[in-house]
Amino acid sequence: MGIGAANMETTPSAGGELLARLGDVCGERGLGGLAARLRALGEGVAGDMSAIEAALAELPRGAGLVARSATHLLDLGGKRLRPLCVALAARVGRGFDAAARELAVAVELTHTATLLHDDVVDLGVMRRNVATARVVYGNAASIFAGDWLLVEALRRVRRSEVPGALDRLLGVIEEMIFAESLQLESRGRLAAGRAEWLAVVEGKTAALFRWAMWAGGRAGGLGERECAALEAYGRHLGVAFQVIDDVLDFAGDPAVTGKALLTDLGEGKLTYPLIVALEREPSLAAVLTEVLAAGEADAAAGAQVVAVLRATGAIDAARTLAEDSAREAVGCLGVLPAGRARGDLETIAVATVNRDR
Amino acid sequence: MGIGAANMETTPSAGGELLARLGDVCGERGLGGLAARLRALGEGVAGDMSAIEAALAELPRGAGLVARSATHLLDLGGKRLRPLCVALAARVGRGFDAAARELAVAVELTHTATLLHDDVVDLGVMRRNVATARVVYGNAASIFAGDWLLVEALRRVRRSEVPGALDRLLGVIEEMIFAESLQLESRGRLAAGRAEWLAVVEGKTAALFRWAMWAGGRAGGLGERECAALEAYGRHLGVAFQVIDDVLDFAGDPAVTGKALLTDLGEGKLTYPLIVALEREPSLAAVLTEVLAAGEADAAAGAQVVAVLRATGAIDAARTLAEDSAREAVGCLGVLPAGRARGDLETIAVATVNRDR
Repeated sequence: MGIGAANMETTPSAGGELLARLGDVCGERGLGGLAARLRALGEGVAGDMSAIEAALAELPRGAGLVARSATHLLDLGGKRLRPLCVALAARVGRGFDAAARELAVAVELTHTATLLHDDVVDLGVMRRNVATARVVYGNAASIFAGDWLLVEALRRVRRSEVPGALDRLLGVIEEMIFAESLQLESRGRLAAGRAEWLAVVEGKTAALFRWAMWAGGRAGGLGERECAALEAYGRHLGVAFQVIDDVLDFAGDPAVTGKALLTDLGEGKLTYPLIVALEREPSLAAVLTEVLAAGEADAAAGAQVVAVLRATGAIDAARTLAEDSAREAVGCLGVLPAGRARGDLETIAVATVNRDR
Repeated sequence: MGIGAANMETTPSAGGELLARLGDVCGERGLGGLAARLRALGEGVAGDMSAIEAALAELPRGAGLVARSATHLLDLGGKRLRPLCVALAARVGRGFDAAARELAVAVELTHTATLLHDDVVDLGVMRRNVATARVVYGNAASIFAGDWLLVEALRRVRRSEVPGALDRLLGVIEEMIFAESLQLESRGRLAAGRAEWLAVVEGKTAALFRWAMWAGGRAGGLGERECAALEAYGRHLGVAFQVIDDVLDFAGDPAVTGKALLTDLGEGKLTYPLIVALEREPSLAAVLTEVLAAGEADAAAGAQVVAVLRATGAIDAARTLAEDSAREAVGCLGVLPAGRARGDLETIAVATVNRDR
């Protein structure tokens, strides 16, 4: 279930890296205040994120092809944004304890499991700037590696003994799978519009963010009302995150994102900017049909698509949707106790819109 | 995780079919007493098996590509031997209730999930006499369908509220995955001997039988000692079952098994009869090396392999191992209360050795 998280740094000190990188980008964009808030946030959760990395590092390595395939991807780091969500949600309550750590590890394992299966489905060759596990260890090992990480994730949620967390995660994984199913069926279909795009994003990306926020809040001892607010925040954050991912497919720097431009398009995935551009400039359909038939965008077609995206204002429309979603996310936080963790969640929402990978 | 269960009947009234078919075979082989016992067994569990089929039939159908891919395989029936194990184990205790039914459905879903992933890994084209789900709906849908059935299985185990059943199933699925990993690594390697073969079989096949017996017993209210005995029975039954599967790859009737001869060999899987034949006739290595390099056995090579298997007595040795394993399985039942269910388990063990699909 890959498009949600294809672009990552390559060091294992991942949570900290994300925040530092976001801080730099914000600095460059004249968002100095946001950059400072991100630095403070990073310092505040550094211990939590280290504990999560330590737990990930304890997974058996070298124990056969499947374990090597799984840890290949885990060891490349990643944004660790989902575990960060768990940590911050727990900190809105009584803090990040051993149970919250299990949940944070579980959400990253679940996410990694979906990436492993996604790369087999999409025949992906590069992720996080290196060859995918399926290229290094084969499709078979990647499929079983995804299965294994899923089992390991569920086991950790069980061990956390946070009431309801396991049932909800099973439900969320099902949502993710059905969203994959929908995406498979609409692959290459230009008629798929905003509603279908949103249904895929809600399932593939937002559902797991929702769970991360809910589970973290529950581990932190928060009540139903607070957890529901965190869950709603997670949903909007997930949509914002995904729209920016979609934008980076056209307007990202491959050296930074770790992913070639127009990868989603080549895989037949109709991203949000394309849907907007098609609405505003129906003649775009001709070149898209060619690209979809070819399975990739050559330089000329790619330039043409990007030109239409810019001319129609589709990229700006996508950024606006991301900003609106981030604002809605922040709006959900009102019922939570004011404090550092709530402020950090506001910072994450705003920063997500400004990420460049 | 396919070799364990590749050959099935094609009607959905599966549990009863299995027993009827086994009864016929036993009748043909002059095992009239066994045939009569199987018929009685089938009548005794008919209600349980119908309840299991009804629950399987309630899974959402037509709800997208992934659900269709999953139910494609489920609807072809199958031996339903693992659910039957759950039912009989529960009947050793206080009987087959709603919780036991959830566990029985879960074990079939888990098994089906592994078949779906296996067919993608092995590029399988036929199963149960029809095209595999991956041929009909694609590899991607099969991968996600396997994921979905796994989630659904775990959810049902959770719902059964049988203490320990979920943790144990997660552990068993991990064992299955690591056995797959081992098998991937030894694929096509003639040096893999009996110990490695047994390790793969214990993980890929016996582990889930173990769980079925343990979980059924627990659902039936049995104590630790009884459940441990049932689990040990399941392990030996699983080995017996797998050895016969291995034999059917060389000596089965494709019209009955639903699977072409020498499929395992073509996939680079060193089955038990081959290991024995290689020990007794090392010159077999030459033709095997050719077959493994080609990825399939042509008629001449196939005939040569089967001739060596028969000349070295390797097929008989495999049947002997299956009989020994079945005897060990029965030997585990001594600590259980005598009664119909215990007698039925003895019948199943003996019949497994005589199955022709």
